[in-house]
Amino acid sequence: MSERVKVFAPASIANMGCGFDVMGFTLDEEGDILEMRRSEGDGISIVNETEIPLPEDIEKNVVTPVIRKFLDIIDKKAQIDVRILRKIYPGSGIGSSSASSSAAAYGMNALFGYPLSDEELVECAMEGENLASGGYHADNAAPALMGGIVLIRGYEPLDIIKLPVPGNFYCSVIHPEIVVSTKQAREILPDKVPLHDAIRQWGNVGGLVAGLYSGDIALVGRAMRDFVAEPCRKQFIPGFDELRCKLVDAGALAMNIAGSGPSVFALADRYSVAAKAGKIMKEHFGSRSIGYDVYVVKVSNNGAKILEEE
Amino acid sequence: MSERVKVFAPASIANMGCGFDVMGFTLDEEGDILEMRRSEGDGISIVNETEIPLPEDIEKNVVTPVIRKFLDIIDKKAQIDVRILRKIYPGSGIGSSSASSSAAAYGMNALFGYPLSDEELVECAMEGENLASGGYHADNAAPALMGGIVLIRGYEPLDIIKLPVPGNFYCSVIHPEIVVSTKQAREILPDKVPLHDAIRQWGNVGGLVAGLYSGDIALVGRAMRDFVAEPCRKQFIPGFDELRCKLVDAGALAMNIAGSGPSVFALADRYSVAAKAGKIMKEHFGSRSIGYDVYVVKVSNNGAKILEEE
Repeated sequence: MSERVKVFAPASIANMGCGFDVMGFTLDEEGDILEMRRSEGDGISIVNETEIPLPEDIEKNVVTPVIRKFLDIIDKKAQIDVRILRKIYPGSGIGSSSASSSAAAYGMNALFGYPLSDEELVECAMEGENLASGGYHADNAAPALMGGIVLIRGYEPLDIIKLPVPGNFYCSVIHPEIVVSTKQAREILPDKVPLHDAIRQWGNVGGLVAGLYSGDIALVGRAMRDFVAEPCRKQFIPGFDELRCKLVDAGALAMNIAGSGPSVFALADRYSVAAKAGKIMKEHFGSRSIGYDVYVVKVSNNGAKILEEE
Repeated sequence: MSERVKVFAPASIANMGCGFDVMGFTLDEEGDILEMRRSEGDGISIVNETEIPLPEDIEKNVVTPVIRKFLDIIDKKAQIDVRILRKIYPGSGIGSSSASSSAAAYGMNALFGYPLSDEELVECAMEGENLASGGYHADNAAPALMGGIVLIRGYEPLDIIKLPVPGNFYCSVIHPEIVVSTKQAREILPDKVPLHDAIRQWGNVGGLVAGLYSGDIALVGRAMRDFVAEPCRKQFIPGFDELRCKLVDAGALAMNIAGSGPSVFALADRYSVAAKAGKIMKEHFGSRSIGYDVYVVKVSNNGAKILEEE
């Protein structure tokens, strides 16, 4: 058992198009880094060493319920001191809360000799997600922990399947400076969906999974379309359909809303296309006087990992 | 180009559990056989050489619109004389109409030098499905033509994906003598489904496709559950839940409604389990004084094929 770990968990994008609420994937490079120390006692301290503003009250930090859930499952007490060394900007649409939650869960597992399974760690991380957005969702936390493209087949019990990641698979994400809360994005969804649309959606989910296994990138692209959440949520994103046309014309496989939005992402099978997609996204929002952050990265197969351990 | 072909198309089961309206698979051995002759002229004749009662009016035989659609696509005229040599009993729940429709489409392609693609042949066969049940569905016709386990990702345009069939994959099907029309089975479905159930359904479709590609038979079994059509349709099948419990206890991977019912099927990864499942199905309906036909077969990878050609 280690006494100190430095742990990384990657950024992720939930709701992979048609895979609304059941799929997510990780982005290379971007992510959160925590340093975690274990000692005798019973308590949690969190110090934010980044320039990103975070609540000082540990009860409002997603890391806290994750640590408590972990200790609860293994039925142990400990003093855990956390230093946040790197942080994705909250609300950026690339799984800021789940990167911290997943890093915390993975770090705890390292500090205690890896007693928990992947599914149990996702359960811990989901406590952080619940604090952040009022819901137990695993579609960011599972990829952030396990890496790659992940399917959450079901929640009762949690059944998580790692899907193959195509060799060359790039993602451009833009976070436009538009305020859409997760709550607002949830409330606009209907309680019921037309059977016809639901059937088209699960046809696409099947096609997307088949495309990933068979390496058929064109199939991945045409299966990404979301018939359920996107028609409701795209109204929050100015010029959504126009932007998709421009990106697909430029060679992107698909464009979808990242998580509950307002970020959007485009997939591509070449870096040059992803870079061009990023440029088109900047122009799209820039010309509307909307600020933005853009990430152009490889879709990673790596999940949370230990950077240092002693 | 041949002047005479003898063509076979297999039995199939539509709505593979969670894959409602988008998946189907073929059964070994069972199926329809047609002999088709092409000559100069412009007309269709159909002779039923089997003991199965079929309408004498060719306008009521599913083969007719399939032949017409085929000739329409290739823009040719011909006299086509059909002899039905073997026929699955209509209403048996294993794709009787689509076996004939698919055999007719495949046979026409052979008679004219294979001008049409698989998707185009499915479009032809769907004309027969439409005559039989008043809807353009491909979830029997596509497997009957192409073989194996098939996903219809979308209809506009038709996008059909052949999925891997596990090496040892058996199916027990029982057709209980209960009258449920396809129309009745359609009408009981809701126009809208709760979003929560729809999400569980597409999680399962993703899991089923992943299980087939990765050869994870246990995943296939637990992903089969249909949350949308089954809860409505199982009322037509006496003791549905009890039967499923008995079959799963006996080692079956899953039990679901075949097509729109009232037939049900169970999947197994060993012939001995499939045989036992067949026995349990017989006892279940026999003890309720309901007659039945039972099939215990391997899930096939073979679709329509030419048996003789001259």
